[in-house]
Amino acid sequence: MPSIREAVQAQTPLVQNLLDGVARIGADPPGITRDAFGQGENGAMALIAEAGRALGMSAATDAGANLTLRWAAARAEAPPILIGSHVDSVVQGGNFDGAAGVIAGIGAVAAVQAAGIAPRRDIEVLALRCEEAVWFGLGLIGSRSMLARLPDGALDLPHARTRRTLAQSIDHCGGDSARLRAKTPLRDPREMGAYLEIHIEQAPQLIEAGAPLAVCLANPGNVRHPFIRITGEDAHTGLPHRFRHDAALAGADLSLALERLWLDEEAAGHPMAVTIGRFHTPADRHSLTAVSGQFELSLDLRAYDAAHLQRLEGELQRLVAEVAARRKVRIELGERSAAAPGPMDPRLIRELSAAAERCGIVAPRLNSPGSHDANNFAASGVPTAMLLVRNQNGSHNPYEAMDTPDLMAAIAVAAEWIASA
Amino acid sequence: MPSIREAVQAQTPLVQNLLDGVARIGADPPGITRDAFGQGENGAMALIAEAGRALGMSAATDAGANLTLRWAAARAEAPPILIGSHVDSVVQGGNFDGAAGVIAGIGAVAAVQAAGIAPRRDIEVLALRCEEAVWFGLGLIGSRSMLARLPDGALDLPHARTRRTLAQSIDHCGGDSARLRAKTPLRDPREMGAYLEIHIEQAPQLIEAGAPLAVCLANPGNVRHPFIRITGEDAHTGLPHRFRHDAALAGADLSLALERLWLDEEAAGHPMAVTIGRFHTPADRHSLTAVSGQFELSLDLRAYDAAHLQRLEGELQRLVAEVAARRKVRIELGERSAAAPGPMDPRLIRELSAAAERCGIVAPRLNSPGSHDANNFAASGVPTAMLLVRNQNGSHNPYEAMDTPDLMAAIAVAAEWIASA
Repeated sequence: MPSIREAVQAQTPLVQNLLDGVARIGADPPGITRDAFGQGENGAMALIAEAGRALGMSAATDAGANLTLRWAAARAEAPPILIGSHVDSVVQGGNFDGAAGVIAGIGAVAAVQAAGIAPRRDIEVLALRCEEAVWFGLGLIGSRSMLARLPDGALDLPHARTRRTLAQSIDHCGGDSARLRAKTPLRDPREMGAYLEIHIEQAPQLIEAGAPLAVCLANPGNVRHPFIRITGEDAHTGLPHRFRHDAALAGADLSLALERLWLDEEAAGHPMAVTIGRFHTPADRHSLTAVSGQFELSLDLRAYDAAHLQRLEGELQRLVAEVAARRKVRIELGERSAAAPGPMDPRLIRELSAAAERCGIVAPRLNSPGSHDANNFAASGVPTAMLLVRNQNGSHNPYEAMDTPDLMAAIAVAAEWIASA
Repeated sequence: MPSIREAVQAQTPLVQNLLDGVARIGADPPGITRDAFGQGENGAMALIAEAGRALGMSAATDAGANLTLRWAAARAEAPPILIGSHVDSVVQGGNFDGAAGVIAGIGAVAAVQAAGIAPRRDIEVLALRCEEAVWFGLGLIGSRSMLARLPDGALDLPHARTRRTLAQSIDHCGGDSARLRAKTPLRDPREMGAYLEIHIEQAPQLIEAGAPLAVCLANPGNVRHPFIRITGEDAHTGLPHRFRHDAALAGADLSLALERLWLDEEAAGHPMAVTIGRFHTPADRHSLTAVSGQFELSLDLRAYDAAHLQRLEGELQRLVAEVAARRKVRIELGERSAAAPGPMDPRLIRELSAAAERCGIVAPRLNSPGSHDANNFAASGVPTAMLLVRNQNGSHNPYEAMDTPDLMAAIAVAAEWIASA
């Protein structure tokens, strides 16, 4: 019998074939588009189901149309280990955000089998539906469906391409949306022994650190204000400064104050992020020769623990009041949405770190830059862990660049962990 | 015979009737729209021509379709005095920006006649075409036509409403656009004794000062960059700060640096203004969850002397380089246009101040917040002056608020000056 590391190494062609296969399915030069509940996601799921069946795994589709591949252990002495991620992508995204993690699950099962190891638990590989928010304006849909965490009204949202509702999309792909309306988990989270998600890192911290992967400490939660409005007074170019109520410059003030807050918090050891995606004077009123009395921006505040997020919301209120007073404008934060941070399970963090060490793989501990399906499993009480894989150029663009040997290193850590879990 | 002040006072009903008349012509609730080369402007010109003819003035239309009303003096010992402004407005503007100045010319002629004064020079009242930039993306068209200051290509610009070219629009309104292509002034500026423009103030400095009018020191010149582009890198919400190339925050930095420059220059006694009208992430790429790699803004820099404007352009280059380096983005200033400052004639400033004093009217000296047709006369070497009339709420909006007694005060100063000029 080969060692686990040798067995993992031997799966490189299988893993590479699957990576290439899902790339072909989503090919949309120069990027990859695997549309959720469409040909892209369905094709990738079919390819992965076929690979699972070739390993003797049984395939099932749940009421949320998620794919579950199960390797029944000879001696199932404890609840199963779930290894999952998603296979959809954004429009013109890259090949690895999502799919690499599902393929890694297949690779880990293949390696454990090849090493002749009989795990104590069933091992399941999950391909979750529609993680990307672009398709319905709401992300993490597969894990939300499975764990009864869909917000009210979600089933009636229209798909950005097909205009089918989420309910219709799920039914169209072999799910049973009626069942989701009952708002009970499709599977009892207490009967899930662990959820492990392998995902490319969406920031270049591992490139910077020179390490192939990281054991994730936490996924961020967020507070979002998609439609902040600033109202000042439209005015003529010639208006002296003391008379102006310039909404655009108030927006500039607020954005830089929030950036200052971010840098101060990080310097004090509190990791977080501030993103202002929309930041604009209203397009229908653009004039070279007018001071803008209106400005709009979106805000995404993220942090890794709930108390910190709450404190940041207080700071936001304070900065908004300060800027409004100084600039003589009105600032309305408007609509608010929030997602709880997803702390990873401390025992699993230790076990995965130990597995990496046994494999001789450098795996620092890092916060995840993004939120993932793992957040829903953690929030439902499932012991949850993530491995982040080195990746250049971020994600959600055609230039994602993960090297297969780095993914094989993550598979090695996962297989080593499965063998002892 | 009444005194000049009494004679002016007696013209209040005439002036009010004309103000009300042009308001009716442009009525577009809640504002006023007098479209250039359309019913609004044509109707106002016809009303004013009729008022001029009632005073014995002869009406003529020049090749630029401007209206000239001439009161031939019994003893024309020197070149004529021109009193002019425009009668078009922006869309949903107010009643006074432009038209009040032309009506003031009629009022001044009526008052001088009523006082039994025979001026030494012919007095002309000019209603100039299309001063507002909204109609062709280019302003001051009537005075440019008259003085051969139209930029190349201007005659081929399309009207925002009718889509007729400027040449077609001029011909449609009784002008002769072919003559304008010769690029020689329609009248020799050396044969214009003086140009006086009475215009509402576009800032509330006179409200603040408690004075009904001001003698203008200078009209600002400007340097404009309508399409400044900042290019950073699109990125995921989770990207740590040190990896970001955030184009929107670079825009915020640049705008606040320019504002700082403005305030420092003013504090050092150098009046100017900075206006950033368009200030935005690209609308077709808006995302709550992405750092924007692109940002756009427009910039209008104005100041009152050419050397100052030139120095400000140097400062702009320096700030752009600083922000680009600090933010790791590219900043392209793009297209540039410039208009020379319009200093007013020192002798006319003194004469108008003396006339105001003789009338017992408080008339501080102020820089004009905006550019006017007067700039073209000054640039062509005509001794040029302006009186700014107190006005609440700025201009280019329905809430312009000039009180007729303040306009009558300006007419009194003009009439007093004409009597001795």
